[in-house]
Amino acid sequence: MELEKKHSISLQGEKQVTIHAPGTVANMVCGFDVLGMCLKEPFDIMQVRLLDEKKITIISKDGYELPTDPAQNTAGAPLIEMLNEIEGSIGFEVTIQKNIKPGSGLGSSAASAAGAVVGANHLLGNIFSNEDLVRFAMFGEKVASGVKHADNIAPCIYGGVTLIRSIFPLDIITIPAPDFFVTVVHPQIEVRTSDARQILRKEVQLKAAIKQWGNIAGLVAGLLKNDLALVGRSLEDVIIEPVRSILIPGFDEVKTKCKEAGALGGGISGSGPSIFMLSTTETIAKDVEAVMKEVFDTIGINYHTYVTTINKTGAQIIT
Amino acid sequence: MELEKKHSISLQGEKQVTIHAPGTVANMVCGFDVLGMCLKEPFDIMQVRLLDEKKITIISKDGYELPTDPAQNTAGAPLIEMLNEIEGSIGFEVTIQKNIKPGSGLGSSAASAAGAVVGANHLLGNIFSNEDLVRFAMFGEKVASGVKHADNIAPCIYGGVTLIRSIFPLDIITIPAPDFFVTVVHPQIEVRTSDARQILRKEVQLKAAIKQWGNIAGLVAGLLKNDLALVGRSLEDVIIEPVRSILIPGFDEVKTKCKEAGALGGGISGSGPSIFMLSTTETIAKDVEAVMKEVFDTIGINYHTYVTTINKTGAQIIT
Repeated sequence: MELEKKHSISLQGEKQVTIHAPGTVANMVCGFDVLGMCLKEPFDIMQVRLLDEKKITIISKDGYELPTDPAQNTAGAPLIEMLNEIEGSIGFEVTIQKNIKPGSGLGSSAASAAGAVVGANHLLGNIFSNEDLVRFAMFGEKVASGVKHADNIAPCIYGGVTLIRSIFPLDIITIPAPDFFVTVVHPQIEVRTSDARQILRKEVQLKAAIKQWGNIAGLVAGLLKNDLALVGRSLEDVIIEPVRSILIPGFDEVKTKCKEAGALGGGISGSGPSIFMLSTTETIAKDVEAVMKEVFDTIGINYHTYVTTINKTGAQIIT
Repeated sequence: MELEKKHSISLQGEKQVTIHAPGTVANMVCGFDVLGMCLKEPFDIMQVRLLDEKKITIISKDGYELPTDPAQNTAGAPLIEMLNEIEGSIGFEVTIQKNIKPGSGLGSSAASAAGAVVGANHLLGNIFSNEDLVRFAMFGEKVASGVKHADNIAPCIYGGVTLIRSIFPLDIITIPAPDFFVTVVHPQIEVRTSDARQILRKEVQLKAAIKQWGNIAGLVAGLLKNDLALVGRSLEDVIIEPVRSILIPGFDEVKTKCKEAGALGGGISGSGPSIFMLSTTETIAKDVEAVMKEVFDTIGINYHTYVTTINKTGAQIIT
């Protein structure tokens, strides 16, 4: 990273904002580590308040036992980085009402990180670009999983579908997508991101990799050409899903039956255990939800479902 | 493959056509085995003449010692497959004036195969779809290299840039591309496709594969969004090029100097030894040509260069 010139600021106007910080689906089946999609639901509700001293305070208003030490908190760490690039004696108090369950595979840590930086930037008069915000927010992911990654952060900040072509240097491309309906089921089992990453092989067959890059190219082309059938055919993962799906009981059945119910396709959201499916109509998306419920009812695993759409704005100031 | 119903035909009109069968750039750097691009130049000139008996004759009008036994010829083998799906006693005589040097990495065998089936289909009243033609023409690639592949065949038949998401089943997607200028240098050294394939490792690092699918997604997005800078950044191959470029003296120097001269980017064409570069203007494309000439003049390797554009129609009937 090059040395940043510090931003000097003169504050006026609002001292506090409320933000909707939405959930996201990383990977989108064939785009492991490079694609992500923003959802309308679920979303966290956050307040960011401007302080007149250089400190960060985290207030958690939910039942989750997340660290409130700013350096260890996914909303706090990005703000520490942001403050490092600002001249002057200011700080932030962040209040988090988390609705996206940590460990769901729906970008819970990214929502906190993205919501915090979007809120803070608004109070500062939007002096930072979206790319800057992603750069800050990735420090939240580092706190959460040990690795800087942007496949939840980028869609949470930009909205819609984003491609992270490269992290170093950061290269984020927005991919305009058709108005899909998205059905999500979050089975209440624990899949730790670190476990989901460790079971992956470090080497892959060239043959499989070629198939995968044919599919991601097809998916991007399908989204940009509004070719829904192509999107469906391209939602295939021959490398990650066959390994990770073992950690999710009922996965294969959910996938097969959702497609039979009319879904274009889908798969594991992020590192799981949530599963998402894309559909072209709300009716199909609700049929797909019914199928998901039926499978997990039969297995006897509790779950939460969402029938939602792609969120094209990302984390948003609501007051 | 499902069993095809045989086409019955009634012939009238033309008995002979002349076809331009153009060269193609397979892989396009980050799209190994799945992307291809059709060129305006070089091109073969072929005649296909309808015969009233079930036989195929190949006449070679160039100095290359290519087999004229139809089953062993890249134009003949696809026509044998086509005839198998036609009822009636007809055949074809194919005359080939080859300008695309075999072994250049510019899709010489694909041009013969594609030109033959496009010409024959025209004489039959276009009873076969482009996808059928690709299916037939791949038998020519099998004769040439032992493997059915479509990354030269598909762009040669469809024109422009094509994505072959899958071969079995065949799934070809056209990718509308900006009006690039293409500079090609064919250094007169021999790189056999089979050698170029054998030196590749069968396994690749997952990390490298992720980089590669980020790049192919970026390239497809750049082409479809007309984002030329993104196309340039995405023309990066971390898997195949580092290995294959060893077979091409001067490769690294050509690439670096062409970019300095203003090219967006480029790399090995197919399995080489030809190198292609994309530019946004003809002036830059000619500067790039000068750079290529200078490098190979200095090394002391003979070469042929082309400054051309993307061919958006593919193999074409000219009379």
